[in-house]
Amino acid sequence: MDAKSPASASPLAAIILAAGKGTRMKSDLHKVLHPVAGRPMLLHLLASVESLAPERVVVVTGAGREQVEAAVAPLGATTALQAEQLGTGHAVAQAEAALAGFDGAVLILYGDVPLVSAATMRRMLDRLAADDGPATVVLGFRPTDPAAYGRIIADADGRIAKMVEYKDASPDERAQTLCNSGLMAVRSADLFPLLAKVGNDNAAGEYYLPDIVMLAASEGRTSVVIETDAVEVAGVNSRAELAAVEASWQQARRAAAMADGATLIAPETVWFAHDTVIGRDVVIEPNVVFGPGTTIADGVTLRAFSHIEGATVASGAIIGPYARLRPGAVVGEDAHVGNFVEMKKAVLGKGAKANHLTYLGDAEIGAGANIGAGTITCNYDGYNKSLTRIGAGAFIGSNSSLVAPVSIGDGALIAAGSVITADVPADALAVARGRQETRDGWAPRFREAAKAKKDAGK
Amino acid sequence: MDAKSPASASPLAAIILAAGKGTRMKSDLHKVLHPVAGRPMLLHLLASVESLAPERVVVVTGAGREQVEAAVAPLGATTALQAEQLGTGHAVAQAEAALAGFDGAVLILYGDVPLVSAATMRRMLDRLAADDGPATVVLGFRPTDPAAYGRIIADADGRIAKMVEYKDASPDERAQTLCNSGLMAVRSADLFPLLAKVGNDNAAGEYYLPDIVMLAASEGRTSVVIETDAVEVAGVNSRAELAAVEASWQQARRAAAMADGATLIAPETVWFAHDTVIGRDVVIEPNVVFGPGTTIADGVTLRAFSHIEGATVASGAIIGPYARLRPGAVVGEDAHVGNFVEMKKAVLGKGAKANHLTYLGDAEIGAGANIGAGTITCNYDGYNKSLTRIGAGAFIGSNSSLVAPVSIGDGALIAAGSVITADVPADALAVARGRQETRDGWAPRFREAAKAKKDAGK
Amino acid sequence: MDAKSPASASPLAAIILAAGKGTRMKSDLHKVLHPVAGRPMLLHLLASVESLAPERVVVVTGAGREQVEAAVAPLGATTALQAEQLGTGHAVAQAEAALAGFDGAVLILYGDVPLVSAATMRRMLDRLAADDGPATVVLGFRPTDPAAYGRIIADADGRIAKMVEYKDASPDERAQTLCNSGLMAVRSADLFPLLAKVGNDNAAGEYYLPDIVMLAASEGRTSVVIETDAVEVAGVNSRAELAAVEASWQQARRAAAMADGATLIAPETVWFAHDTVIGRDVVIEPNVVFGPGTTIADGVTLRAFSHIEGATVASGAIIGPYARLRPGAVVGEDAHVGNFVEMKKAVLGKGAKANHLTYLGDAEIGAGANIGAGTITCNYDGYNKSLTRIGAGAFIGSNSSLVAPVSIGDGALIAAGSVITADVPADALAVARGRQETRDGWAPRFREAAKAKKDAGK
Repeated sequence: MDAKSPASASPLAAIILAAGKGTRMKSDLHKVLHPVAGRPMLLHLLASVESLAPERVVVVTGAGREQVEAAVAPLGATTALQAEQLGTGHAVAQAEAALAGFDGAVLILYGDVPLVSAATMRRMLDRLAADDGPATVVLGFRPTDPAAYGRIIADADGRIAKMVEYKDASPDERAQTLCNSGLMAVRSADLFPLLAKVGNDNAAGEYYLPDIVMLAASEGRTSVVIETDAVEVAGVNSRAELAAVEASWQQARRAAAMADGATLIAPETVWFAHDTVIGRDVVIEPNVVFGPGTTIADGVTLRAFSHIEGATVASGAIIGPYARLRPGAVVGEDAHVGNFVEMKKAVLGKGAKANHLTYLGDAEIGAGANIGAGTITCNYDGYNKSLTRIGAGAFIGSNSSLVAPVSIGDGALIAAGSVITADVPADALAVARGRQETRDGWAPRFREAAKAKKDAGK
Repeated sequence: MDAKSPASASPLAAIILAAGKGTRMKSDLHKVLHPVAGRPMLLHLLASVESLAPERVVVVTGAGREQVEAAVAPLGATTALQAEQLGTGHAVAQAEAALAGFDGAVLILYGDVPLVSAATMRRMLDRLAADDGPATVVLGFRPTDPAAYGRIIADADGRIAKMVEYKDASPDERAQTLCNSGLMAVRSADLFPLLAKVGNDNAAGEYYLPDIVMLAASEGRTSVVIETDAVEVAGVNSRAELAAVEASWQQARRAAAMADGATLIAPETVWFAHDTVIGRDVVIEPNVVFGPGTTIADGVTLRAFSHIEGATVASGAIIGPYARLRPGAVVGEDAHVGNFVEMKKAVLGKGAKANHLTYLGDAEIGAGANIGAGTITCNYDGYNKSLTRIGAGAFIGSNSSLVAPVSIGDGALIAAGSVITADVPADALAVARGRQETRDGWAPRFREAAKAKKDAGK
Repeated sequence: MDAKSPASASPLAAIILAAGKGTRMKSDLHKVLHPVAGRPMLLHLLASVESLAPERVVVVTGAGREQVEAAVAPLGATTALQAEQLGTGHAVAQAEAALAGFDGAVLILYGDVPLVSAATMRRMLDRLAADDGPATVVLGFRPTDPAAYGRIIADADGRIAKMVEYKDASPDERAQTLCNSGLMAVRSADLFPLLAKVGNDNAAGEYYLPDIVMLAASEGRTSVVIETDAVEVAGVNSRAELAAVEASWQQARRAAAMADGATLIAPETVWFAHDTVIGRDVVIEPNVVFGPGTTIADGVTLRAFSHIEGATVASGAIIGPYARLRPGAVVGEDAHVGNFVEMKKAVLGKGAKANHLTYLGDAEIGAGANIGAGTITCNYDGYNKSLTRIGAGAFIGSNSSLVAPVSIGDGALIAAGSVITADVPADALAVARGRQETRDGWAPRFREAAKAKKDAGK
């Protein structure tokens, strides 16, 4: 999706406010780093911004700045410190130095309002760049319950007559349903001069960003509002709101998966990660959880209670129920991974099967191999992870232990219950288990002894 | 439930329209073959029709006809081809040859409207057979959002004054909330002559089935509407609608299970199959999925995260959590199947227990036997499935492998960790494992070597 | 939470009506004993009452009295028999003998209305003790759909003018939305004299408890209503209503967990028990089920599909996905319990790991130990449960069987696939498995034979 448009090709910067730690979250983790769909909220926002190819991105930090700085550093965003919490206007002003020399449009976003799409950002920028040259573009929304949100009084064309905090609003103004999301687009050349004029003569003694709208108006400059859905500008100040934003994201993602041709038998019980890729004619049974990094090809069946992260599944494969694919799991075409089977850094070849109670870690398994129930790749010695190679068409008898590093050749056979410690050539049979001894009539004696022990223990 | 009634005992035929492949489904599978509750939509409808003992059933096919023909062939329905998609009236007309010689009532149904009950079909037929002799009976409904559905203008007794497509409707007509489901009942002697008069003088150039209502009226014949719930006539044109129909079906089934005396702790997380049978005082914990073919007797407890298909569970048994019962699993009275246990074609006797991490495939287990944790029946050699027999009261030590075909006698004991390849007589003890060697002081040496290897690998 | 208040420090008794067995439940279990959040409804109520430190608690029993008596006996409540079902007034009157000599406030509660909080009970008692001295305090509520509930006609201060059954109510009275929950607080000195005057001159021939309000009024005594939320006074007469009450309870508990600083990614898929304790910065993935008796410390991660009952989990531990912790499971700080792992009466030391396909029953595992995939503690011989001890820093190779009673010393190593039957000293290496034999070229011969057998079986 290319969200760029020629109409607003002026240089872009984004300021993301992330100074509030979020006391109501009751967390040692900074609010904006709590994940939605397996990715920190702030990174959702940065990814959307990134798709607009900004020249600069400034994240304004405050409480818990170390956590935020560590999160954004690898992404090339800069940070600016708001040492004191003096309001949103003050917060945005802290980005001025980081934007020194920048001349273009500035998007003002919030780290705890993570679902704003690149398309909506683009709409804001396009509106800012329109011929009538508004001073600011405000993103408005109409919540189901407008409650105490600040109201936007605007005409039918979106020209703003007044921005008013709920507590200062008249009854008529409160009856308006268009509310202020806080998100804005402003030219850098306007933003900082306007901010410099914002005062803090209010009950909280704070500098409010929305004041720039009225300040621009006092200079004869028009501001405009464009609207979006309330879901898109939902903010997160508590774990309940975090859950609500997660739910919104998942609901949209499920709808998209179905529209693209996947069957979700119970959509409300499928949880996607931010980057899950799902093909056509994929069938997903109830209760499937995706972690990040998964690609599912066309025609795959994901059965109930499967947990899949960092995995690649080729077309026609059948996964689950109760399959756990961990990072590095690669399932070949038409392969089967069945119940209570875990794969990690393991490749299962085309048509191969591992259907029951198996652990495949650090393993390469050839096409058409059959991994019996209860097979364990013993890949770890407490210090090193070692590789198990299983050739095409090999048959691993049930309850076998394959002590890595070990290689089983193509077409080799491992007898059930074997502990394999040495390589097995192609087409060989390996047996590594104890010999059976049967002692007639011993069971009653054993039972009597066990029962006596039990009785004695009472 | 006997849906037959003497009032409408005239011969019955059903025409089911299934010519549209369903582009919006984005699927290689024909729309009407997508399953709801584990059974293709079309077969839901055929089963409901079948309960009315029709003389003939004709499925009208078109795109993807091979798939539909293959699905209905085993059920004794005939098919008629609609080679071109020229509208619903044209589709119904294609069934005329297949109904040659038939004289009676005809139900017109839609393969993608799968939840219509036999009782509603019966109501339509009874109304058709009533003394006032209507020409057609139309099934109407009142959706929450009537949107662009065709409206039915009728009097309080259901006599239809007008059928009107939404786009042709006046504001007054659009304000009517009674909508046309498309389902109809018509005598064969009326249906085909009326259809022959339907024209295609409309924007789409299609022959519309509802036109027969107005054509009958022009002959002085009355048509009537009877109403049903919108849920019952929900249609499926997308995966989202498929999920919605699945959800409706499940919600009704869960309510029925509770009304019959089962506890569903979280009903919204229990998924039934179309033919699941559940007894009284069954307790179902959250997240239980049923596949087809399952019968659960009174007093069974199904614990969380269980997946059950093709299984029979006797009274008092406890299943799960995390139990997987596959086709052919038969669990005896008061038996226990615990966590991470899979059963397939396996009979677990009265009071027997398999509580942990076990695979029982192709097995017969006697009453009171105890199957230790980690037991695997090794039932497959890559070509053949073989049987494991375990006698009553036998005790299978943990982590044993039973290499089939093999028989463990009544009361026999298998030592933990054994690989059993030969039959064990009743009351015998079998041990088949390696002898323990303990090498004092070797662990530190091993750790040093492993650590050195790890360090070398860095 | 101390629900006592000085204003109503007069002695307290509670009468809980539990005489109706609940035919609509279709159960062999008495209605009030069906559990909500893992605890019988009646015990929820008794726990709330108990927090108010009552002098006496009388449960009125009838049908199925043996079950109810057995349930309440251990809790110190007394029971009174209502031999015939003659109405709520009659039921309460049966408690008179059990309250002989008691002089104070009486709360009248219902065993099938389990969610009434101690705080609401306290509000009722405080209102009864207020200076204006009402004769009775009635608990009212405003349901979404008032349906056929009895109405309370009261002034703005809650003074009751009339209590009227729905069927006797005038249209104006039916338009009132304040309904009678049935719960009352009355002084013992008023209650039984008023009850003695209640008649049964009505269609059902029953003695109705609410009649005492009008009888008190006829003596010039005022009754008052206080209101509560409809959810709190929801009653259970069917399995569907049981599920609804369970859902209400869970919804409130989830909200509380989030408010206290836990992340619930999909709150609607987490099921708490009545006594679950959850710390701060606990992350709960979708689909986690708690049974009774669990405490989860701060900073624990509970991954998807975990089932936890009777377990204690220390801070920083990671549980699941697919972990089953059963009673007596104790997971140490920063320890890991992974997929398809079951713990029962087992202690896992600080930083120890049991990550795959393992059964740990009756076991003590030291700090930092590593339990390989597929490890089974063989704790049961059919009669006795025995202990497995694993020392700190020990390494248990994959697919090992530890035959209890057995002790593995600190730092000891168990080779993969071993069956350990004798104690292993600290720092020793133990191997107990068969020797590997490899037979070159045998696999094709085996396959030919197996294939021939298969072909012969056709």
